[in-house]
Order: sequence, then C-alpha cells, then structure tokens
Amino acid sequence: MFEDFWAKKGEEATVVIPGWQTLSYFSDVTNVCWFLERDFGQEVRRLHKLVGNAVTEDRYIVIGTGSTQLYQAAVFALSPPDASEPMSVVSAVPYYSGYPMKTDYLRSGLFRWAGDARAFKGESYIEVVCSPNNPDGSMNKAVLNSETGKTIHDLAYYWPQYTAITEPADHDIMLFTVSKSTGHAGTRLGWAIVKDPNIAKKMTKFIAMNTIGVSKDSQLRAAKILKVISDGYEHPNTKSSMRLFDFGRDRLAKRWERLREVVKATKLFSLPEYPLETCKFTREKFAAYPAFAWLKCEKEEIEDCESFLKKLKIQTRGGMHFGVDMKYVRVSMLDREETFKLFIERLASLA
Amino acid sequence: MFEDFWAKKGEEATVVIPGWQTLSYFSDVTNVCWFLERDFGQEVRRLHKLVGNAVTEDRYIVIGTGSTQLYQAAVFALSPPDASEPMSVVSAVPYYSGYPMKTDYLRSGLFRWAGDARAFKGESYIEVVCSPNNPDGSMNKAVLNSETGKTIHDLAYYWPQYTAITEPADHDIMLFTVSKSTGHAGTRLGWAIVKDPNIAKKMTKFIAMNTIGVSKDSQLRAAKILKVISDGYEHPNTKSSMRLFDFGRDRLAKRWERLREVVKATKLFSLPEYPLETCKFTREKFAAYPAFAWLKCEKEEIEDCESFLKKLKIQTRGGMHFGVDMKYVRVSMLDREETFKLFIERLASLA
Repeated sequence: MFEDFWAKKGEEATVVIPGWQTLSYFSDVTNVCWFLERDFGQEVRRLHKLVGNAVTEDRYIVIGTGSTQLYQAAVFALSPPDASEPMSVVSAVPYYSGYPMKTDYLRSGLFRWAGDARAFKGESYIEVVCSPNNPDGSMNKAVLNSETGKTIHDLAYYWPQYTAITEPADHDIMLFTVSKSTGHAGTRLGWAIVKDPNIAKKMTKFIAMNTIGVSKDSQLRAAKILKVISDGYEHPNTKSSMRLFDFGRDRLAKRWERLREVVKATKLFSLPEYPLETCKFTREKFAAYPAFAWLKCEKEEIEDCESFLKKLKIQTRGGMHFGVDMKYVRVSMLDREETFKLFIERLASLA
Repeated sequence: MFEDFWAKKGEEATVVIPGWQTLSYFSDVTNVCWFLERDFGQEVRRLHKLVGNAVTEDRYIVIGTGSTQLYQAAVFALSPPDASEPMSVVSAVPYYSGYPMKTDYLRSGLFRWAGDARAFKGESYIEVVCSPNNPDGSMNKAVLNSETGKTIHDLAYYWPQYTAITEPADHDIMLFTVSKSTGHAGTRLGWAIVKDPNIAKKMTKFIAMNTIGVSKDSQLRAAKILKVISDGYEHPNTKSSMRLFDFGRDRLAKRWERLREVVKATKLFSLPEYPLETCKFTREKFAAYPAFAWLKCEKEEIEDCESFLKKLKIQTRGGMHFGVDMKYVRVSMLDREETFKLFIERLASLA
C-alpha cells in the first residue's frame, strides 16, 4: 500500500551511499547502543515529537533488525541470567502469532512462552502488550499487575494512519518498526524506546551477540525516509505536498468502508467495531482503521473459517495461531491495491 | 584498512536507492532463501568463480545479517529439534572467541558449546572449522571424523588478500561475509554456501524467525560493491585500475613485514610462520598475511601477555578467550593506518 506513496513522492526520498561510508561495526561508542547511527536516532525522536505518540525525552533508543529482533532482545534483557526456571512470557488472547514462535524456537533456558496472560497464575512474568493489537486492532493495556512482573509494549501500529493518537505512550519498553510506520519492511529496521539504562544495555548486548549490530545502510536509508515524512508536515512548502499519515489513513479508510459493506452483504461474518476518538495529531475524530481485519465467521456450520476462505482463494491466518478458535481469521489490509481488490471481489461473491 | 581503497575508488561504488524500492519482506518466493535479492546472489556466485575460492554450482546461497547470524542458523539447522540432550558444538583450539558465546547466550536446549574439538569424545557433534583460522591464521581442517558428525566451515578469511587460494573450497556449509572480504562490516551481510537443500531451508527458517530476513538495503549496496570488485578484474579498462585483493595484499604484506621486524627486535615474542603457497588466483607464490597477528610471549616472567601489552596501551585479546593460555594474544592487522602505526611504535618501544 505504501509503495504508491513512495513512488509518487519521487526522488526526495532517495538515499545515496558512497562506497567508503560506514565501513565500521561502530557508529557512536559514547552511546549505550553503540551501533545506532546518530542521524537515525535524531529522526526517530523528531518523528515521535511531531506525532506525539511516544515519550522519548530521557529515554534510550536501541535499534534492531526489525522489531522481531528487539522483541527477543527485550525478553532476553528482562529474564534473569541465572534462574533455575525459564521466565514465563505471556500475552492476552488474541495475541500476535509471532510471539510464541519467537519465544520458543531455540528452547531457551532463560524464557519460555506461557500463553494467554489472563490465564496466567504467578508473580514473575513478562507480559507482551500489543496496542493497537495485532490481530484485532484493539487498544490493549496490560491485564496482569504484579510488582515483579515486567511488560513489553509492542506499539508497531500506534501511528495516525491506523488509529487516533490520544496520548504519548510512556512505558518501560516500547517497540516500533519502519515496516508498519513507513512501509519499508525490506529495510528490516525497528527501534525500542527504553527507560532503564541497564535494560537498554542488555538489549544492546543481545543484538551485539545475535548480529553484531544492525545494518548501517538500513539506518541511513530509514533516516532519510523518516526525515521526508517529518519534513512533509513541518516544512509543507517542499516539492511534494503528499503527507504519509494522511495518505495512509485516507487509503485505509476507503478500504475499511469497502470491507464493511461487503462483510455486511455476505451475512456470514462480523468485524470488530472501534470507538470514535479524537486524534491529537490530526485534530480529527475518527475510529481506528487497523492494518488487519479480524473477521469472525458467524455461521454455525463453518467451523474452520481459514479453510472456508481458502477455497475462495482468500489468504488468511486462522484464529488458532492467535490463541483463539477457528471461527476467527486475520486478513491484511496493507496489501497492494490489486490484491486488496481481488480480496474484496472474492469476498463479495459470497453475498 | 579498506576505507582507503573505497575512498580512492570513488563514485563507482556508490549505491542509490529510491524511496519506493524493496519495500517488501520478500525478494524471490521461488528461491529457497526467499529474502535473497537476485542481484546479490548473482554477484556472490560471480566473485567466487572469479577468485576460485569456493564451489557455488548446484549449491544454495543463504544470506544472513553477518556471518554471526549464519553461524547460529547453521548450528540450529544441524541440531535435531527433538533430542533429549543438546547437540555438542566444538572447534579445535585456538578457536574464534565468538563461537562459545554465540552458541550459549540463550542457553538453548538444542545445542551447547563443548569446547576444544580435539578433546571431544563421542559420535554426535557439530565441528566448526575456521580456515584461515581466527586467531592464528592457520589453514585448518576438521580434526574429528565420524559418520554422524557435522561440520560448519567458516571461510570468512579465505580471500586472496589474506592467503593463497589453493583450491575451490567444497564443504557442506561454508560461511563468508562482506566484512572480511570487502571491509564493509557496517553493512552486516554474510552468505552461506550450502549443499543440502533441507539444511538451506532450515537455515532460512532460522533467519526468518530471528529477523524475518536480511536488510534489502545492505544487499543492494553489497551487490554494487561486489560488482565493482569483479569488474576491476574482468573489465580492467574501467575508470579506476585499483583492484581490491591486490590493494589488500600489498597493504597487509607491508604491515606483516614491519610487524615481523619489530617483533624480532623486541626479543620477547614470536609469531606463527606460514608456508609459501602458489595462489591459483594471482598465480604468485606467497605466505599468508592473516587479518590477525597471533603473538606468543616467549619471556617466562610475563604470564599474562594481554595485561602486559595493555600497560603499553596496546589493545589485544588474550589467549583465554580462544581456549588457550595467557601467553598468547590476538592483534588486529586491519585497523586504520594511523592505529596500526601506533601499535608498531608502541611495540618497538620494547626493543
């Protein structure tokens, strides 16, 4: 979906990297995150300040090869190195299908996936809070509350193309990524905003052990991309007047309107409803337009909604992956225009 | 060291990436390694063919965020998912100090570091063979030999600036990285050449779980860098006649000559001797010029060589990190010219 935006934006967002630049592993040895390019760190803080979606003053920025790596870095940093039992990692259902796999694929002795946060008993845990939530778009808050419990806030979708920005988020560890904010998934770049310097150090250590830092080329490119987005709002007289969040929200609003019409016509499915909220960034009142549609099949005969839709060549991910039943499926709302049109046409054939 | 080369090479090695390029996670869904950019894969094969240092015909290329990530991917791929005991990972001393840490930092139930390969008893293992070896530059071969044992060959330094290319390497899993071949450590890009498609698939799966692929920006840039290197040899009439491997070997030969003089003058240390070999790539006969000097302190009074040299402000890494005693230290031979000169001056002060 974002490809159209960047194609229209043209050369303004092009990055040029000479052969002799950024050869070293190091970017700034005086920084806790010693592989963070200064320009990228500055553009991250600038964009959050502009949008008002997260507090960055007196916070540490740690970068990762996508927020996937930062999730693992955060879980590593919050797990004691010498415990006899692995730390439990939980999230309220429906949770992002990637969390269990990313937690357990190496069978670590430091941490392990423990499922639905609401079903968890105990005082020691890491709760992952995804807000807006992947898959269902709801503005989640932590469901557990203990003095020894820790939280990781995955805020990949807390941007004004998806939802109203109601306040600057201010949690211990907050994860963001360019793939959801700007569309550059191939750049594999995320960042964490971290309160505690010791946690920031441990996360940095994880990334050093895992990949000895993060691509400088991705950082240089992403710094340019974020700059172009901020410039679009702060210096509106530049060549192109297109602004990313407006473009994204307009496009998503149209897609959601179309989807809701078709879903209604099928009389087979339901979609979550989102409350109207005033966005402090746009100063408009609107309901969320999540990056995913969380479809529930309301027909009793259809037990496995994913298989049912697969027969119509509609690619979805079933509820089982998200810790709930097979009545639910997740569908991407960010695909290319022609893919989204095909999805709508195929769904409409059920009406 | 390579910075000088790329600065002199000039604009030929510059990469330009427009804002709309490579937004997707995917590069080529028909490829086992679905996040590998085609151009990069082609330039990798082209360079190996030119240099003659590795067989790539009928082999799979898997890319990683540096060879550090590929090492973990290979260990993961070679370890059974359901064994009751973790797989033992070994390497002959002196071994690269990164292996134990990269194997054990998550306390995986799938694999664990088991130390010196020569001391290992058993039939089931993964032996890591680094050749030329980090830290001591020797052309290592596997020391264990069992039908059920597996090997990973880390060939990061098997390039003609460091050693004579005597034959195309042809092992089950071979790891390479741009940081040692071209000097672009900040690009965080490595590749594995893999015989078995199932191993290539499992390694790809690891990288998908760990970081959902590898920076496309790094791949685009590295494709350009490798192309410029190959062009330098295959199309010698291009603007600049400088050729990377010649530049690197000349520079390293001078550094090694200077180092050997100073070491001799101190009467305190010894250095490994390397045999003269005919390089099939350059058609010249020369002894290795490794990326690291492996200094042994021959003075009985000096037990901890790292601490001894630290007092002279010489930064080294002690033998303990490599599985041997404190008489040994490793020193980088690839630093910037002024850093290397300082090292030589400080060492010469002992004479």
